[in-house]
Amino acid sequence: MAFYLGVDIGGTNIKAGVVDGSGAIVGEADLPTGADRPQEVVFGDIVEAVGRAVAASGVARAEIRAAGVGCPGTVVPESGVVAYNNNLGWRNFPLGKLLSEALSLPVRVENDANAAALGEVCAGSAKGASSAMILTLGTGVGSGFVVDGRIWTGWNSAASEFGHMVIVRGGRPCTCGRLGCLEAYASATGLIALTREAMAAHPKSLMNALAGEEGRVGGHTSFVAAERGDAAAARVVDEYVDCLACGVANIVNGLQPEVVSLGGGVGKQGERLLGPLRRKVFAEVYGGCGERSTRLVSCTLGYKAGLIGAAMAAMQNAGD
Amino acid sequence: MAFYLGVDIGGTNIKAGVVDGSGAIVGEADLPTGADRPQEVVFGDIVEAVGRAVAASGVARAEIRAAGVGCPGTVVPESGVVAYNNNLGWRNFPLGKLLSEALSLPVRVENDANAAALGEVCAGSAKGASSAMILTLGTGVGSGFVVDGRIWTGWNSAASEFGHMVIVRGGRPCTCGRLGCLEAYASATGLIALTREAMAAHPKSLMNALAGEEGRVGGHTSFVAAERGDAAAARVVDEYVDCLACGVANIVNGLQPEVVSLGGGVGKQGERLLGPLRRKVFAEVYGGCGERSTRLVSCTLGYKAGLIGAAMAAMQNAGD
Repeated sequence: MAFYLGVDIGGTNIKAGVVDGSGAIVGEADLPTGADRPQEVVFGDIVEAVGRAVAASGVARAEIRAAGVGCPGTVVPESGVVAYNNNLGWRNFPLGKLLSEALSLPVRVENDANAAALGEVCAGSAKGASSAMILTLGTGVGSGFVVDGRIWTGWNSAASEFGHMVIVRGGRPCTCGRLGCLEAYASATGLIALTREAMAAHPKSLMNALAGEEGRVGGHTSFVAAERGDAAAARVVDEYVDCLACGVANIVNGLQPEVVSLGGGVGKQGERLLGPLRRKVFAEVYGGCGERSTRLVSCTLGYKAGLIGAAMAAMQNAGD
Repeated sequence: MAFYLGVDIGGTNIKAGVVDGSGAIVGEADLPTGADRPQEVVFGDIVEAVGRAVAASGVARAEIRAAGVGCPGTVVPESGVVAYNNNLGWRNFPLGKLLSEALSLPVRVENDANAAALGEVCAGSAKGASSAMILTLGTGVGSGFVVDGRIWTGWNSAASEFGHMVIVRGGRPCTCGRLGCLEAYASATGLIALTREAMAAHPKSLMNALAGEEGRVGGHTSFVAAERGDAAAARVVDEYVDCLACGVANIVNGLQPEVVSLGGGVGKQGERLLGPLRRKVFAEVYGGCGERSTRLVSCTLGYKAGLIGAAMAAMQNAGD
C-alpha cells in the first residue's frame, strides 16, 4: 500500500502525519515551531517531526512514496522554494530541495491555505466536489480554490488571495496595504474589532460581561451573547455576516463553485453562522438560485486539513 | 477542411459567420434582431443569417461540422436552452434543439460574454493564454473566464458574473439588485453617470462643450476632454480607472489569470485606459508583482469575438 507524508508548518506547531491514499491519517506527531530560531534548526525539527509520525504510524519507510508540505507565505510549488515567509523570517528558502535530500523522497511544497483547501476536497467538507472554495476565517481570511481536485494556483503560483478582495472601496485598512479587503471585515480579527467597538458603545451589553469572565474578547463573544438575547451582540453578528455574505456572493457570482466551505475559528460557529449567511448570500446571487446552488458548509477536518492536503498534493505530484 | 458556424445574437443584430479551425472568419452576414418580434420569427432570421454567411463563404455545407451560438441571458450549454433572456423575452426557449434540427448539425449554445471571451482566447488578445479574464465594458460589465482554452461555467453553468462583484458595500444600485457592483462603476453607463455629475458640477468644463457638439454624452467624453487638459474630466477618468482597477485587482488577487483583456466601448480607449490602470492595479496586487504578472491588454476582435468564440465552442463540443 502507498502512503504519503504531510507536513503543516504553522505559527505555533509543526504538524507531521503519514496519510494513506484516501486521505486518512495513520500516524502523526507535532513539535513546537519556534519561529524565532534559525531556519536550519526549524528545518531539523521538521525532519524530526516526520520521523516521529512515521514511527507512530508503524508504516515501513519503503511504503512512503512522497512528501508534501503546507507552508504559510509565498511559495513556488514548482521549485519548492519558500520565497517569503514573514513569521519564520524565510527568504527564498529551498525547503523542497532540502527536505527531499533529508527524506530521500520527492517533496511538494504548497501554500498552507491551498493545502488545507485540497485536504477538505480530498477528505473533508467538500469531498468529491468538482470545484470548491475554502475560506479560513482566522487571524486573516485564507482561501484556496480547488478545481477538479487540483489547487488553482494561477499563472504565477500566487493565486487564491480572495481575502484580499476589496468589498468596501476606501474602507478599513488591511494588512496587505489595500483599503476595505474582505479580510479586514470577515476575519476573526475583523469580528473582534467590531465586537470591541460595540462593547465600548454599549457598556451594559452581555458581551462585556462574557469578555470579563473569560478575560478576553474572542470571535465567539458576539455569537454567544447574541444567542442569549443581547441586542447589541445581535447587531454585531448581523453586520459581520453581512460582510462575509458580500464576499461569498461575489465569489459565487464569479465562479459558481459547487461548494464553499468555511473554516478557522469563526467557521466553528457552524449553523449559527451558516443559517443567516445562506439567506444573505442567496438573496444576492445573480439571476437568483436555480436548482443547482453552491453548497455553503463548515470545514470538517480542523487542524488536520493542512497536513492531509499536503500529503494529497504530494500524491498528485507523484502521479499516483 | 473543417469549418464551424458561429452566431452572435445581439440586441441590435444577429451576426453569423463561417469560421475555420484557427478562428478565422471566411464568410459572414448579419440581419437586424428585431427583438420585439415573436421568437419563431427571430429564429427564422437566425437560420436565414446562417444561410447567407455560408453562401458568402463559398464553403460547402458538407465541410461544416457544427454550429455555436452566443446568446445573452441565462443559458444552459448542456441542453441548449435559453432559460431567460430579458431583451428577447425568451423563457426556456430550446434554441439549441431547434437550430440543430434546422441546420442538421450539432449546436452548442453559450452565454454571449463567455463566447466572446473564448473568441479572444482562441484568436484575439489572449491567444494561447493558459487562463484569461475578458471584461466587456459596455452597457454593463460582461465577463468571461477561460481556463486551458475552455469557458469556466462553474457548477451550474451560471458562472462568470464578475461584473456583479460588490466593490462598494452599500454603494450605487446595480441593475442586478445588489448595491455597489463593479458594473455600477466600471461600465460605460457608470462612466457616463460620473461624467454627467461632473458636467453639472463644472458647467465650464470642456466635457460640456464636447457633449454639446456631439449631441450626447459618451464613455469617451471624459477621456477626450482629459487628454485636452480639462481638470474636471481628468478627475472623472481618474475616479473611473480607480474603480475599474479595484475590480481588476480583486480578480488578479483571487485568480492570477495570465491575461486580463478589456473590451466593449470603454475598452477602445486602449493605452489611455490601460496605462493608468496598470499602475493602479499592480500597486494593489497582493505580495507585489513578481516576474510573472498578469498581462492587461485590450480586446482585439471587436464585434467578431462573439461569433468566433461561438464557433470555437462548437468545435470543442464536437471534439474536434
